[in-house]
Amino acid sequence: MKIHSIAMADPPLRSSYGLHQPYALRTVIELVSDEGVVGISETYGGEKPAAAVEALRGQVIGANAYRLTGSLVDLIEGEGAGMARSQTHLVPGENPLDADTRTFAAIEIACLDLIGKSTGQAVCDLIGGRVRDAVPFSAYPFYKHAGGGGEGEDAREDEYGEALSPEQLVTQVEQMIARYGFGSVKFKAGVLDPEIEIETIKQLRKTLGPGVPLRIDPNGAWSVETSVKVGIALAEELSGGGYLEDPTAGLEGMAEVRKRLLAEGIDTPLASNVAVTSFADLPRSLKLDAVQIVLCDHHYWGGARQVQHLGKICQTFGLGLSMHSNSHLGASLLGMAHVAAATPHLTYACDTHYPWQSALDEITLGGPVPISGGCVRIPDAPGLGVELDVDQMARGKALYERIPYRNRDDEAEMQKQVDPNWKRVLPRW
Amino acid sequence: MKIHSIAMADPPLRSSYGLHQPYALRTVIELVSDEGVVGISETYGGEKPAAAVEALRGQVIGANAYRLTGSLVDLIEGEGAGMARSQTHLVPGENPLDADTRTFAAIEIACLDLIGKSTGQAVCDLIGGRVRDAVPFSAYPFYKHAGGGGEGEDAREDEYGEALSPEQLVTQVEQMIARYGFGSVKFKAGVLDPEIEIETIKQLRKTLGPGVPLRIDPNGAWSVETSVKVGIALAEELSGGGYLEDPTAGLEGMAEVRKRLLAEGIDTPLASNVAVTSFADLPRSLKLDAVQIVLCDHHYWGGARQVQHLGKICQTFGLGLSMHSNSHLGASLLGMAHVAAATPHLTYACDTHYPWQSALDEITLGGPVPISGGCVRIPDAPGLGVELDVDQMARGKALYERIPYRNRDDEAEMQKQVDPNWKRVLPRW
Repeated sequence: MKIHSIAMADPPLRSSYGLHQPYALRTVIELVSDEGVVGISETYGGEKPAAAVEALRGQVIGANAYRLTGSLVDLIEGEGAGMARSQTHLVPGENPLDADTRTFAAIEIACLDLIGKSTGQAVCDLIGGRVRDAVPFSAYPFYKHAGGGGEGEDAREDEYGEALSPEQLVTQVEQMIARYGFGSVKFKAGVLDPEIEIETIKQLRKTLGPGVPLRIDPNGAWSVETSVKVGIALAEELSGGGYLEDPTAGLEGMAEVRKRLLAEGIDTPLASNVAVTSFADLPRSLKLDAVQIVLCDHHYWGGARQVQHLGKICQTFGLGLSMHSNSHLGASLLGMAHVAAATPHLTYACDTHYPWQSALDEITLGGPVPISGGCVRIPDAPGLGVELDVDQMARGKALYERIPYRNRDDEAEMQKQVDPNWKRVLPRW
Repeated sequence: MKIHSIAMADPPLRSSYGLHQPYALRTVIELVSDEGVVGISETYGGEKPAAAVEALRGQVIGANAYRLTGSLVDLIEGEGAGMARSQTHLVPGENPLDADTRTFAAIEIACLDLIGKSTGQAVCDLIGGRVRDAVPFSAYPFYKHAGGGGEGEDAREDEYGEALSPEQLVTQVEQMIARYGFGSVKFKAGVLDPEIEIETIKQLRKTLGPGVPLRIDPNGAWSVETSVKVGIALAEELSGGGYLEDPTAGLEGMAEVRKRLLAEGIDTPLASNVAVTSFADLPRSLKLDAVQIVLCDHHYWGGARQVQHLGKICQTFGLGLSMHSNSHLGASLLGMAHVAAATPHLTYACDTHYPWQSALDEITLGGPVPISGGCVRIPDAPGLGVELDVDQMARGKALYERIPYRNRDDEAEMQKQVDPNWKRVLPRW
């Protein structure tokens, strides 16, 4: 087992958490079989995720890749598995309550890649079989500062430029759609005054026409009152496959927003990857009708099979399902695509930050994983369908060593770049 | 793909459905790969299950075993998947509403066996990895007439003899425990007057001592009133890992029994394989608190992975999980064992009718699958861990051809053997 901590440039994207640092961190795992077959996975970065995988070395080395997940099942089923773990105040990947499920997922995907490469089968076909060959993703526009991420010799080109107005954001989306063919848009809000963000969605609708589902995600930045106001203002624009994601913090707040919108005759569904981030959150969310669409992430829900379980739960209880994303590279994108391909009840296009990353940082051999027609196609090659580029891995590791960042802290970056007194306040509006 | 309809002798077991016919029917499927590896599965028998698998021949032949389940997903996820399908009035295997999920499961298990035998891995390790090597089963005593099943030259020896009194049933259980080492007992009731069945459980408790969980299953034969009466009478005997299974018909009745027992301070959980037989039954059951333990069956819930999904649902919503059984042979028993081995949230010993079948009918090479210490151990051999015995298969097929039975009808057999006017009446008491 090899564990690599790598870094990549990350553009100055804004959200209610603050500002992306100039570098994002990832951990890449390689499991090498006796026959020399290599299974890989990519997960959250920094010191803690790498150390958590390292701590399992004794259980991993010499294990049968088919049985390893069974022997590590306490990571997802043991004490703590039944604990709710809201991410309201923590960026994904920095929540200690899901450390074990994250660790399990990283090992599981590497095992599946190893098994797939050993048997000549795609990961999606090892976990029940693909129900789709191409997985749809959304455009994921952000308000951002100018710059493509990285600093000095590592500074990346900025294809998109600054976007701090509705007009700039619409241009950003047009660029993304032209390049990747996305058929839906999820807009990261919670950054500017809600009136400006409403205007942004209205301009997006006007520019893109009626056929493109629009979604808006302020990461809990709004009060119930503001959430309802935005929900009413955008009732038309978010209909037809749109959703309102985590408008306000907490299940109770979400439930109140839902209730008040329904009372206005508006049934825009509420999505979440903040109020519902584990199986333990589901019963209460269902009881309150707080969340109608779960945005999962195999990286922290405990891996591919846990996401499939979640899909069945969502189907059984009438919830929608899609996937959340974080800054990531191609191995994670393919992990998401394989899991999504083998999850029948996937009802919305998935999120991905992938277009924000630079090809200069890609670690998969052959360069970035293609997104075409808004979709990632399951590759013909076995396992995840990619191998690591040794030179690029070395580059990512060297970059990691060179930079001071060891975890993600969007608040600190906001203080550094914008306002030394900036705090994440919920609700802000 | 080869589809074999076989028959086996079946003892005259009684239940609220009536009387087991002298023969039970099974369908055995063989999938043969290009390399000559054979994957097998065993499922419900008779004409319809065999015809349903046959109808898929065009999709099965030439398919990749890893992908076949994905391409057949409409059988478990398509129209009808969301339909409730109570088995209150239909014996398992004869419910047209779960025909598709039964067909899917039969193909899925055969694919998994084929994949396992091709890769040298156990089925449980293909679906997430074993979390236990030995799967616990219960003794499953029935009131019965004398006789071991079969007729004429096919009549089987009757190891247990008649059991139509508490004393005879206790003797039956003692024999089973002596032979197989069962650590828990599930008693099939709904046959004699509830007072006699209460007495049976009391005698079992007295004979077996306090450490053996006792369960009672009248298959919905009782009114709410009678169910509550029995629940109160057996509060002590069913505590410590026991349950009351399907005392009365329908979710509303079950919920009322639960409510009234709780009001008496009795929290004996209610189990079901009749009121809850599909994912669609779960939301309403949870809302009503009708069923606290789901007794699944991979044969009709849609296969191994669907049972794993169900396990996560049960864990998430605080339900117990175990497995229901029907008359079956060794390939089905191993199917159950592999699924159970890879389902973390399995909270009660599973049911099996297996001890009721004769070794003369066993189709797996090497004879009956061992049950020792009350458990079935996952075999060391790959796939399900067994191969078919060609001679025994021929014998089972010849028997099927020789007998007139083409479906299961316990009511008709009761009319034939006991009372021409016998009808299944719910509630009977």
